[in-house]
Amino acid sequence: MRNLLLTLSYNGKNYHGWQVQKNARTVQQVFQEALFRTLSEQVDIKGCSRTDSGVHANMYCVSFKTNSSIPEKKLPLALNKFLPDDICVTSCKTVENDFHARYSCIGKEYIYKIWNSPFRNPFLDGFAFHYWYPLDVDKLNEACREFLGIHDFSAFCTKDARNPKNMTRTIKNFNVQKENELVTVTVEADGFLYNMVRILVGTLLHVSMGRIKVCNIKDIINSKDRLRAGPTAVSCGLYLNRVFYPGIDFS
Amino acid sequence: MRNLLLTLSYNGKNYHGWQVQKNARTVQQVFQEALFRTLSEQVDIKGCSRTDSGVHANMYCVSFKTNSSIPEKKLPLALNKFLPDDICVTSCKTVENDFHARYSCIGKEYIYKIWNSPFRNPFLDGFAFHYWYPLDVDKLNEACREFLGIHDFSAFCTKDARNPKNMTRTIKNFNVQKENELVTVTVEADGFLYNMVRILVGTLLHVSMGRIKVCNIKDIINSKDRLRAGPTAVSCGLYLNRVFYPGIDFS
Repeated sequence: MRNLLLTLSYNGKNYHGWQVQKNARTVQQVFQEALFRTLSEQVDIKGCSRTDSGVHANMYCVSFKTNSSIPEKKLPLALNKFLPDDICVTSCKTVENDFHARYSCIGKEYIYKIWNSPFRNPFLDGFAFHYWYPLDVDKLNEACREFLGIHDFSAFCTKDARNPKNMTRTIKNFNVQKENELVTVTVEADGFLYNMVRILVGTLLHVSMGRIKVCNIKDIINSKDRLRAGPTAVSCGLYLNRVFYPGIDFS
Repeated sequence: MRNLLLTLSYNGKNYHGWQVQKNARTVQQVFQEALFRTLSEQVDIKGCSRTDSGVHANMYCVSFKTNSSIPEKKLPLALNKFLPDDICVTSCKTVENDFHARYSCIGKEYIYKIWNSPFRNPFLDGFAFHYWYPLDVDKLNEACREFLGIHDFSAFCTKDARNPKNMTRTIKNFNVQKENELVTVTVEADGFLYNMVRILVGTLLHVSMGRIKVCNIKDIINSKDRLRAGPTAVSCGLYLNRVFYPGIDFS
């Protein structure tokens, strides 16, 4: 029996996130159906994380054990024939028997796209958050630097039954880049709390509006008070961009 | 009465092209309805060209005469409130009384996007043509150069009642660029025949496959024989990108 690690990319616009749900179409459900048709075998798939409704993935990882003998190289193309146009399997590797897409993960990178213009972009509806007022990228990058390192991010987490007890995460990289009207926020951490990236982005937008001062960010983190952070930015701008595992190189 | 020139961008995925049609939703129809709601006046609008079903526009130009006193600066934002998310008015200028979006036009630039990878891109469904086999960009640029200048492009035109008698056009710029897996074909001319850009792109793809040789392109042009050129590439990769008028600077 092989343990396989697959990467996929998906446009989350028409899905209620990754995780299987009753009465809602999710990426996992559609993927599982395609996998069953390809392997002719029911497998138990492990996803690297949940994603919310409308969130996209440039790279999402799943692992599963299979008796199928389909070669690694052929599996992505075979699966893609059974998947809709908004989901694509981009690679397949055989991994160690104890590998688990979620528990073996040592870090993730998300990006958040903001269309920063008085005019909406007809090609980015559902793919970026449309924000009218000018963003000061230097100021936002100053704010980003306040978050770097190991912190208890309780103030940046939606309260939810799913929350873990340990609210400490390490942000390794957090920056904002602007290319013409497209602003991209990139954040890498060893893990993320529920809605953490979207609340970080909402907080950056409040910094831009002057509602939160850069010099108060450390205080807000230390307060562990969700009400002092910014709002949760809409889901459509969010993309799971990269997933990191020890000893696995996707490049 | 003012004569106004508006630029718009639109995602053509859900439209049967620009031109008003019976029993089909078109960009012109939706735009006219929004204009009527904004101006409270029925106006006769002139579009810079027809576009086919599924074709997009980064810049489309329309002109119309109006008695409305809404300031130039405010009209785009007012109109955008009545337009759906896949159409956006991006600028408005007052122009000379005899200006006509179609007849005053002295040139246009189209781009055609090709996603060149064995794996489809879930974010480009309807926004680029997915072509699996590797494209040799240098060879395609060699082919492009054969088309530059003044030619009768009868071989690159779908036969249609709309065809003009004069089939001569001047291609001023024609090139192919590749950025990772995204290949962009750019072509600028004083005007285009029906389906001309899509047939030029189909011909480039046949050059890539080796079905048409670069050294035969001049012959194919001179033959005026549609059957010797390549197929008509699908509409979803095509974008009207820029429209040129004498003395008008959109930058």
